[in-house]
Amino acid sequence: MPVEPARGRGGIPEATVSRLATYLGVLNNLASAGVATVSSGELAATAGVNPAQLRKDLSHLGSYGIRGVGYDVAYLRFQLDQNIGSAEHWPVIIVGVGNLGRALVNHAGFSSRGFRVSALFDVDPALVGSRVEGLPIHHLSDLASVVRDPLVTIGVLTVPGEHAQPVADTLVDAGIKCLLNFAPINLAVPAQVTVRKVDLGSELQILAYHRQMSLADAISAEGLVPGGYGHSGE
Amino acid sequence: MPVEPARGRGGIPEATVSRLATYLGVLNNLASAGVATVSSGELAATAGVNPAQLRKDLSHLGSYGIRGVGYDVAYLRFQLDQNIGSAEHWPVIIVGVGNLGRALVNHAGFSSRGFRVSALFDVDPALVGSRVEGLPIHHLSDLASVVRDPLVTIGVLTVPGEHAQPVADTLVDAGIKCLLNFAPINLAVPAQVTVRKVDLGSELQILAYHRQMSLADAISAEGLVPGGYGHSGE
Repeated sequence: MPVEPARGRGGIPEATVSRLATYLGVLNNLASAGVATVSSGELAATAGVNPAQLRKDLSHLGSYGIRGVGYDVAYLRFQLDQNIGSAEHWPVIIVGVGNLGRALVNHAGFSSRGFRVSALFDVDPALVGSRVEGLPIHHLSDLASVVRDPLVTIGVLTVPGEHAQPVADTLVDAGIKCLLNFAPINLAVPAQVTVRKVDLGSELQILAYHRQMSLADAISAEGLVPGGYGHSGE
Repeated sequence: MPVEPARGRGGIPEATVSRLATYLGVLNNLASAGVATVSSGELAATAGVNPAQLRKDLSHLGSYGIRGVGYDVAYLRFQLDQNIGSAEHWPVIIVGVGNLGRALVNHAGFSSRGFRVSALFDVDPALVGSRVEGLPIHHLSDLASVVRDPLVTIGVLTVPGEHAQPVADTLVDAGIKCLLNFAPINLAVPAQVTVRKVDLGSELQILAYHRQMSLADAISAEGLVPGGYGHSGE
């Protein structure tokens, strides 16, 4: 979640890229189920957006469904693939093999989009050398020798907050260009490195805000009910 | 991550609420470290936003720093608390005690904001009755009897995608009003229930998009260099 509204280098706003990524996930599921065409209404509903938003988003690809027929699943996947990047091209490494790192190794949301975890790293001697889901855990100091594939440019950081910055520095030094950071701190990285921060505490805070607001609504509504249990309105 | 730009019920845009939540996290850290005042520049830098964005966001609270002195940490925390909801008021339950659920029980990003996990649920007989970090794992069918505190209104879903909808239905029936969903599906819930979806695959996809765009930039820049290794520009 970026802290500021941002535009991708290719000119598509990040919020749109995020929704395009969601559509791609839905289309991948449809393709797996053998579905060849999908209506804009069905695609929008499954992705959780309204049809107008879907049409606006897909216009960034120059893609328009055929009235009464809908979208060709294979072709729309191809177009999304061309525009927002094919997941299969970018193997992912995970640094920090605690519960969160382990959870991500086989995360359905990664594999359903075609992302593949290619290597695991930690510094804990009790973990290095063991395996998770068949993948060996390497020592972080072996990063450069293990990650020789230049396509490996996405690193997921699931390390404690106090270790996140030095680990990020190590990844950047090894040529990793994109970081997905789960630690509750902001990483300092060179300008050519992209960081996405998943701030789970912030997500809960937003829910707490909604809850607080709906309670406030309920209390003020109650105040308007004659003979209600709330304070009377003034 | 909402699929559409949304406005909180209290009129503050969700993207702003998200940043206000980040500022509150920073202020909590400062308060723990005994810091009494903070400049807008320092607060903005630590939160990863520019100072103009910070001032705009805080104007939603009617809060203005004192020139040359900055913000009073305790008072700004109080204001944020009043506006976006105090984390301490909302204990959280986690349903699905796999690796991801376990990772969240002690997630630093939750506890640093004051959120407290109050109960764990699963349906696996091998897990029910055991403990994680001292918290017993209850069977989901005991939800209503375990969760008698009406303040427990936030539920975190860390269950496999195919179980997410029935589990969400169970939580909604038990009175849970806010769901943080980690399963890669869109939940259908009544209008009065708020869902935030953490779509980790979508985060990776956005990184892949950035990577693809910067490679495209590099290739086109190379084409413009006379005698470069790329294709010559046309």
